[in-house]
Amino acid sequence: MSIRIEKAESLKQKPESKKIPFGQVFTDHMFVMDYEEGQGWYDPRIVPYAPITLDPAAMIFHYGQTVFEGLKAYRTKDGGTLLFRPDKNMQRLNKSNRRMSIPEIDEEEVLGYIKQLVEIEKDWVPEFEGTSLYIRPFIISTEPNLAVAPSKTYKLMVILSPVGPYFAGGMKPVRIKVEDEFTRAVKGGTGAAKTAGNYSAAYRAQANAKQEGHADVLWLDGVEKRYIEEVGSMNIFFKIDGKVVTPALSGSILEGVTRMSVLELLKDWDIPVEERKISVAELYQYYEEGKLEEAFGAGTAAVISPVGRLDWLGNTMTINDEEVGPLAKRLYDEITGIQLGEREDTKGWSVNV
Amino acid sequence: MSIRIEKAESLKQKPESKKIPFGQVFTDHMFVMDYEEGQGWYDPRIVPYAPITLDPAAMIFHYGQTVFEGLKAYRTKDGGTLLFRPDKNMQRLNKSNRRMSIPEIDEEEVLGYIKQLVEIEKDWVPEFEGTSLYIRPFIISTEPNLAVAPSKTYKLMVILSPVGPYFAGGMKPVRIKVEDEFTRAVKGGTGAAKTAGNYSAAYRAQANAKQEGHADVLWLDGVEKRYIEEVGSMNIFFKIDGKVVTPALSGSILEGVTRMSVLELLKDWDIPVEERKISVAELYQYYEEGKLEEAFGAGTAAVISPVGRLDWLGNTMTINDEEVGPLAKRLYDEITGIQLGEREDTKGWSVNV
Ligand SMILES: Cc1ncc(COP(=O)(O)O)c(C=O)c1O
Ligand SMILES: Cc1ncc(COP(=O)(O)O)c(C=O)c1O
Repeated sequence: MSIRIEKAESLKQKPESKKIPFGQVFTDHMFVMDYEEGQGWYDPRIVPYAPITLDPAAMIFHYGQTVFEGLKAYRTKDGGTLLFRPDKNMQRLNKSNRRMSIPEIDEEEVLGYIKQLVEIEKDWVPEFEGTSLYIRPFIISTEPNLAVAPSKTYKLMVILSPVGPYFAGGMKPVRIKVEDEFTRAVKGGTGAAKTAGNYSAAYRAQANAKQEGHADVLWLDGVEKRYIEEVGSMNIFFKIDGKVVTPALSGSILEGVTRMSVLELLKDWDIPVEERKISVAELYQYYEEGKLEEAFGAGTAAVISPVGRLDWLGNTMTINDEEVGPLAKRLYDEITGIQLGEREDTKGWSVNV
Repeated sequence: MSIRIEKAESLKQKPESKKIPFGQVFTDHMFVMDYEEGQGWYDPRIVPYAPITLDPAAMIFHYGQTVFEGLKAYRTKDGGTLLFRPDKNMQRLNKSNRRMSIPEIDEEEVLGYIKQLVEIEKDWVPEFEGTSLYIRPFIISTEPNLAVAPSKTYKLMVILSPVGPYFAGGMKPVRIKVEDEFTRAVKGGTGAAKTAGNYSAAYRAQANAKQEGHADVLWLDGVEKRYIEEVGSMNIFFKIDGKVVTPALSGSILEGVTRMSVLELLKDWDIPVEERKISVAELYQYYEEGKLEEAFGAGTAAVISPVGRLDWLGNTMTINDEEVGPLAKRLYDEITGIQLGEREDTKGWSVNV
């Protein structure tokens, strides 16, 4: 589809240091495309970043029919701009669309629009170490109708936000609480989709955890409350007695792009890895036996986030003396190296803008 | 708080027949109030019904932090306007707020604003049998911030929509499918809150059910997938061998105002009632023994909606020959009688506007 471009009349001031608060600064332009039943997706356009106007009865406000994605553009040393496996985000967006009864998008086409938007905003990709331009595609249901049913109209938007390093003073292990009261998702629910409701549903548990000094919660499965699922916005990995274990996709876990990349690298490196059900009780047993060598989260925000301590119903697992473990470090260096174009990209993960 | 009122310059045409599609026609005015951290709720106002403008990064679009309510205003024969137990809706709104980490409202104050709005719009309360003015209060998170955390700003709005009779040609039993694949809610999740994400999460299952000729699905608990929870927007009741059974509030069921009213009436009428766990298997056994006398949903939309047939994994339960049962009829007549001011309101359920 041919795209309409309307340039902003005046440009905003770009952040000058790498201390950019996450998700609060936005670039000069955004991408918008509309959907109407019968017509399909239409009018793709890049326009000045501006508020949107919706009827108070727009379905998004009432029934939460919406999906989103999150990926990043990285500045290379030679001034280029790279995206990391953006095709995977487009695939996941459509997977979320199917779960939420939202019309699918043409993945290649939308990726093309995102590249065009990033190209126009390329001066917004910050160049300090650890910084990037966060890309947030999202689709909202816009029909003004209080009937509880899928919307007949939608809006797909892409906004861009420069972000500072996830770890201000270098990678630092975090403390995580195993959540035993609240549930994030359950089999048959929306946990495997990237949809708004999953995130606010987590706030109560996260607030409790923060009060106790934890960075986030580790969710358990909603059925038995025994099996480990994921952390707030990260999938979780454990290194146990030389092997890496991560929860298998259960239908209620979001399949992370970072997770799949970690799995592929581990296979390349001949490190044994198991995708399977793992209960906290099992993990704790390994801990007591001295076999829990490392734990780390994997997600777009931090890439790799080592877990230094896990608290579970009064039991504390201190992992690798709350230091960054060698495997977490190796994965972080390799993935960020590829993202920044500094390490050889043998798998075609990086996409030039 | 003193309220600001800005009247619409021109008024819309009101629907002239009772054939009003649900949730698509809105009145001339709406209520709006804002919240800001540190300041609390402020600037309550009644203004012309109009689109709202939000930053594309407003949290509602990304993380679904939002709650809503639904109640109705009824026209009495002598031209008055009645609300049905609106205090219960305000209580539930705050319960939902607590679950979703949204600042609580002053229940009495907001109810006062709603009454003022309905008073201004009282000519919009339709007078044909079975019609009413649907009242939709909702709160959305408005802070433009992609951080996954509670918003620092919110907007509470109340919009009004005249609605036609739920059953166009008189009360008619519906066919319902017991949902065995998808899950609406689970213990520890958001099922007991009236929040957007719960509703769009149900679309896939509802679409499948509709294709098979069912009006809606009957949800089972998310843990064991055995125990009956509720229908799309209704709580469910069964009359079994002279007794009434309804699922106990499990933490994943929405506590309906109609449900609590049905329970109180049944007690008044000395009809034995049990709030307890009930599995579909148990229900099916009663059905086979010829003891399943009636089944009906209870909710603001239909008040009472008889279920004529329940389909469960290839088993069909035909209930009361798919006719309206005497208990469903009695409850419907009593509750709508009180709502319309035609039956004595011994409990103070009706509130004059
Ligand atoms: C719930 C959840 N799990 C895991 C992830 C990690 O996914 P990704 O590696 O694609 O960022 C995210 C992501 O952003 C998430 O929101
Ligand atoms: C999920 C759900 N259950 C039950 C009900 C019934 O509640 P009420 O009787 O208050 O309308 C509703 C209501 O509207 C609902 O959305």
